[in-house]
Amino acid sequence: MSTAPLDVLADFPAIPAGWAYLDTAATSQKPRPVIDAITRGYGETYATVHRGVYQRSADMTLAFEAARARVAAFIGGKPEEVVFVRGATEGINLVAQSWAATQLKPGDRILLSALEHHSNIVPWYMAAERVGAAIDVVPLTADHRIDLDAMAAMLTPAHKLVALAHVSNVLGSVLDARRATELAHAVGAKILIDGCQAVARLPVDVAAIGCDFYVFSGHKLYGPTGIGVLWGRYDLLDAMPPWQGGGSMIDRVSFEKISYAPPPGRFEAGTPHIVGVLGLHAAIDYVAGLGLDRIEAHEAALVRSARAALSQINSVRLFGPDDSAGIVSFAVEGVHPHDVATILDEGNVAIRAGHHCAQPLMELLEVPATARASFGVYNGADDIAALVEGIQRVTRIFG
Amino acid sequence: MSTAPLDVLADFPAIPAGWAYLDTAATSQKPRPVIDAITRGYGETYATVHRGVYQRSADMTLAFEAARARVAAFIGGKPEEVVFVRGATEGINLVAQSWAATQLKPGDRILLSALEHHSNIVPWYMAAERVGAAIDVVPLTADHRIDLDAMAAMLTPAHKLVALAHVSNVLGSVLDARRATELAHAVGAKILIDGCQAVARLPVDVAAIGCDFYVFSGHKLYGPTGIGVLWGRYDLLDAMPPWQGGGSMIDRVSFEKISYAPPPGRFEAGTPHIVGVLGLHAAIDYVAGLGLDRIEAHEAALVRSARAALSQINSVRLFGPDDSAGIVSFAVEGVHPHDVATILDEGNVAIRAGHHCAQPLMELLEVPATARASFGVYNGADDIAALVEGIQRVTRIFG
Repeated sequence: MSTAPLDVLADFPAIPAGWAYLDTAATSQKPRPVIDAITRGYGETYATVHRGVYQRSADMTLAFEAARARVAAFIGGKPEEVVFVRGATEGINLVAQSWAATQLKPGDRILLSALEHHSNIVPWYMAAERVGAAIDVVPLTADHRIDLDAMAAMLTPAHKLVALAHVSNVLGSVLDARRATELAHAVGAKILIDGCQAVARLPVDVAAIGCDFYVFSGHKLYGPTGIGVLWGRYDLLDAMPPWQGGGSMIDRVSFEKISYAPPPGRFEAGTPHIVGVLGLHAAIDYVAGLGLDRIEAHEAALVRSARAALSQINSVRLFGPDDSAGIVSFAVEGVHPHDVATILDEGNVAIRAGHHCAQPLMELLEVPATARASFGVYNGADDIAALVEGIQRVTRIFG
Repeated sequence: MSTAPLDVLADFPAIPAGWAYLDTAATSQKPRPVIDAITRGYGETYATVHRGVYQRSADMTLAFEAARARVAAFIGGKPEEVVFVRGATEGINLVAQSWAATQLKPGDRILLSALEHHSNIVPWYMAAERVGAAIDVVPLTADHRIDLDAMAAMLTPAHKLVALAHVSNVLGSVLDARRATELAHAVGAKILIDGCQAVARLPVDVAAIGCDFYVFSGHKLYGPTGIGVLWGRYDLLDAMPPWQGGGSMIDRVSFEKISYAPPPGRFEAGTPHIVGVLGLHAAIDYVAGLGLDRIEAHEAALVRSARAALSQINSVRLFGPDDSAGIVSFAVEGVHPHDVATILDEGNVAIRAGHHCAQPLMELLEVPATARASFGVYNGADDIAALVEGIQRVTRIFG
């Protein structure tokens, strides 16, 4: 694995010189090739897909389906298993409402973990309420990973679904997705992996993991907003009823009877986010061009450096494991995380402070919120230095 | 009402000289200010909304909410009544699954019309199936409008919801939305208006109409793909349960209990299509700058001119009323609409051929498909001439 730092800041026009953007876990900045693909999609080649009989629309349809194939290749799936959705949240809701709400029975159980994002809690809570299923919560290890030994002990044949984050959006802890999948399958449960923080940070191969569903958002993968991916095993997708009705997802419509198209079309009602899909294609080309193994090494080095420097400051408490994937959550003793973020912002350092849509994890960590610095391909040693300098300023102001 | 032709073709970089783009009812081309707003959103001002504590994110949040206020002003609603969705299809599904599927009881009835788009049929079919409700279908008048007299005779207190297209995507017929609303309300039914083809073609004021829900897509309003609007009366939205779970739509989350945010946040789970919303704002500014009354007059003149010319060709059969809003569906005797479209494409004229996601209407018209020319602000006399010349070529080839 190469450990040479990436040097791609110049690709990102929205990051001005001297701005330490450390909120990539919320959303990533966009490289020029992505912006160009979007501008070209609207300004040169624009047309609808699937239904136009003229050349421009046929060309756009080819580009749209080429993007689907690119997504599939990127994560090790097949094109017909790739459903374009609004984002990971919609992908999880689709599975919760089309699969879980129709497959689960009263008394069935869903297994989540204590570090899940609200988007991987609320849809299951709503589905469980609807069908009378129950939710169990896997605890974390002392170093804030999902405790797979505990999970092995908790799983029973009543568990029909396991849903876990591949990488924690708060802690950066990386799940052993393959082992989690084997444990789930051993009791006959299906497993959905929330890959939002993973796909931009490490190589992902759904075939190697063996999971049933995998979701991610384009805007966290250096791509456009409003587009995401639900990957599902074809036999599972094929057995699922449609969730949203509309154009493109039907085979035949009358007022008496409606028949539905096969996947993925069945789950893509209405005109899709055409240009978002083109932008996602460009984003995948961009990160794949850099190499996910290089990105992983780059962010691991940034995390090591940030954790080493921050641990030198007495009042800083670090959360999460040392080998976190590009995300460092921390607290400064006696200072509210929002104040930390505000003072850092005055020094041109953008971090996030809050519950990070993970209120149950905040309760477990016994804090109302954390400060979080998260890294991307464009970050470097300067950004870590600016972060550390900012925290030192915080401790002086509140010291 | 001004009848001076618009002269804005130069604003649309994706329409090359000599290309007659007549598929605006499928999706509209984008003016430069929209493309610029999108490029700027990704390339200069990009950040997440609502949760960042740094200045860039606070600025983006202001821009995002300013777009919501602009949408509200555009259609005569209030900002807190504007829910950003993926498109009109998602908006209708939201109402069908959150409102209809929880409010309707077995034996209740839903009233649609014979000219509805699949997106305004399938979601109601699915909701009706789920709750045991029934669907009734308002017929059309001889000149292919929704027959409101027939509707008045059909409505009963069992009808809890009426869902109608403001402008037919196949025929261009314009609904008297205010009268339809009064009829629905007279029996205590709620009414949803599908405004996809209306908002870009005529002035719309939901307060003047008095309706309960109104939906439209950004990409048909000269805006980006992947963004749309559900407008709903606040008291109705406020009484509706959430549909998709995730970040932003919650108030408080634990594994035991979840409380939800008020509208519109309750219905906007996950990171929104931030840049799509900025682009939609620019699109609304663009059409409002031209003036919807001018656009309406412009397209009415194009329709008159096209219908007059096409009716001179013996083998052409025209569908829809003479005062259609910018959309002309037709058939060429003995020629499949796909062949019509293909031959037109060879002459650089892009029209749509097919069932236009309105299979029930095709059955009623007793055709498998129609050819459809639909106009936008960029079209002019040259495009009508090219269309007519193309149809004459079709009749020569097949004559």
